[in-house]
Amino acid sequence: MASKNVQITDDLSSVLDRFFFDRNYTQVAVLVDENTEQACLPLVKDLIPEHWLISIVSGESNKNLSTCESIWGALTEGSFDRHSLMINLGGGVIGDMGGFCAATFKRGIDFINIPTTLLSQVDASVGGKLGIDFQGFKNHIGVFKDPELVIIDPVFLKSLPNKELRSGFAEAIKHCLIADRKRWDEISQKNLDTQNWVDIIGHSVAVKEDIVAGDPFEKGQRKLLNFGHTIGHAIESTYLDRGEERLLHGEAIAIGMICESYLSKKKSGLQETELNEIVSYINRIFGLPQLDKEAFEEMVELISQDKKNQGKVINCTLLKTIGEGVVNIPISTGDVIDALFYYNQLSDK
Amino acid sequence: MASKNVQITDDLSSVLDRFFFDRNYTQVAVLVDENTEQACLPLVKDLIPEHWLISIVSGESNKNLSTCESIWGALTEGSFDRHSLMINLGGGVIGDMGGFCAATFKRGIDFINIPTTLLSQVDASVGGKLGIDFQGFKNHIGVFKDPELVIIDPVFLKSLPNKELRSGFAEAIKHCLIADRKRWDEISQKNLDTQNWVDIIGHSVAVKEDIVAGDPFEKGQRKLLNFGHTIGHAIESTYLDRGEERLLHGEAIAIGMICESYLSKKKSGLQETELNEIVSYINRIFGLPQLDKEAFEEMVELISQDKKNQGKVINCTLLKTIGEGVVNIPISTGDVIDALFYYNQLSDK
Repeated sequence: MASKNVQITDDLSSVLDRFFFDRNYTQVAVLVDENTEQACLPLVKDLIPEHWLISIVSGESNKNLSTCESIWGALTEGSFDRHSLMINLGGGVIGDMGGFCAATFKRGIDFINIPTTLLSQVDASVGGKLGIDFQGFKNHIGVFKDPELVIIDPVFLKSLPNKELRSGFAEAIKHCLIADRKRWDEISQKNLDTQNWVDIIGHSVAVKEDIVAGDPFEKGQRKLLNFGHTIGHAIESTYLDRGEERLLHGEAIAIGMICESYLSKKKSGLQETELNEIVSYINRIFGLPQLDKEAFEEMVELISQDKKNQGKVINCTLLKTIGEGVVNIPISTGDVIDALFYYNQLSDK
Repeated sequence: MASKNVQITDDLSSVLDRFFFDRNYTQVAVLVDENTEQACLPLVKDLIPEHWLISIVSGESNKNLSTCESIWGALTEGSFDRHSLMINLGGGVIGDMGGFCAATFKRGIDFINIPTTLLSQVDASVGGKLGIDFQGFKNHIGVFKDPELVIIDPVFLKSLPNKELRSGFAEAIKHCLIADRKRWDEISQKNLDTQNWVDIIGHSVAVKEDIVAGDPFEKGQRKLLNFGHTIGHAIESTYLDRGEERLLHGEAIAIGMICESYLSKKKSGLQETELNEIVSYINRIFGLPQLDKEAFEEMVELISQDKKNQGKVINCTLLKTIGEGVVNIPISTGDVIDALFYYNQLSDK
């Protein structure tokens, strides 16, 4: 199902053995944060050659140039050459930033990603998008480059808090909404705790690989994957520095999917019954936390900076129907405000 | 002679007209430094669409992350999207750093390079190597990516100080030494002021394109182009913060070529008469400025960090004979010290 680059396995040891069998890296680094160092590194460290450990502080707010400088600095200190390898062991932040640092260190060293959260397993594991945040804009600086290998092992999900599992599930829901009505019908019958994660990961990776393969540099169809993200990213960024109120990526994307489903009804033919079906299931899994109206202006400002725009037009990915997305639907800043107000009134009902 | 990507021309206007004819960029930026803003921008600015001017302070010592942040910041402020273009108008620093910023902004926007120094015309114009310095190491952070177009117009050389012209000439000399005995015989008959620059640029671009085409990611033969650079880069870095004493890139490479020719006699079969011929011509053009012995240790340290190394072995590109280079000759730090002492005693004679 997955390409040679992505391996879904419950036998980490064999996959790593095979990988290192005919490769002669001069040095190996493992990038972790304080969480994956504790929960995930013990499952990996005896399966790989002698290595340097680079540990960074977890969290999207550290996905910036300053952390990159400390990663590049560690590689420099260890005299890493171009024939060395970086293993990114963690969630999306570790994969995106570690990949970016590897892809730019001495103009590029090899790296492999071992995503340890559901979110990074179903989403960040495919597509070669690497990057960091800059001046408050998500993934503003980065490159496209595929890892040598992505290893997805559901064993890491056991240590994952429920809130993180739910966050990853948002992307799995998205993959159904844009590409697979039948699978949507299946998952939307179940709560979070009865889902089959191996199936869901396999499905998500397959949907994403299929879309990415036809459009590696996001010129067209790949934008399907942005459903929920135009508005969702802006919500996530706006709430980034709000401490307790902070939203996980998938929690923000869940709200973004409701807003963009509302716009899909307005712009691209989604039926009202379908909109209600989506709202109802997202409510069941995520609830409908109220957004701060005072932040709407900042969200709109962020959306105007979105990488997917062309000039001043906001290009949005919407749904024609459940199971079929459509890219490049122009929306206005007024539409965005409408959608945010629509979302907020849902929980008033 | 040059590929479709590199155009050597005396008609900048037609080339730019043709380039913009069927492209619809939403925004255009021109990156300059204070020198090219004054001497080169007037020749270009009426030939391109409305644009943002981004001006940085010239010099290798500003080719760093902090300048990148100001370039990325300017693109962000101008709401540049992925369908925008950056024009890098200047020498190697502008091309390497502007290209790196373009290649990483929103995971990559188009860029074109208009090299304005002989050095950047004969060297940096081909090969897609982009990058910045980091913690004192040259081009330590970067990527490989080709510009949409490189335009080389000798008109820019008219405003170039003689010292800069000579610096660029070092790379042209290198291209003869590694690949073309006949051309070496021709240029080494002439002083700097009687060289035919259009011919020399054409030859250098052709030699470099030929080598790069077979090895875009510097896994093998491309290392031929590193002749003179293993030791030359270290000398250049060591002298970077020495004010008046500072060496231009080509001046450092000229010294590096003498040192590495000396090692070629020791390791790869270069004849003593050939070594003397090389020393004699480089002396005629560049003189033999004495190196500071106190800095030798720092140079060796820098060489041990060279991107071209594999583990602890220093891999050097040397000459078999004038006109034929050879890659991956292992040398020791002791060899480097020997070569530096050899160079210094030349001017004692």
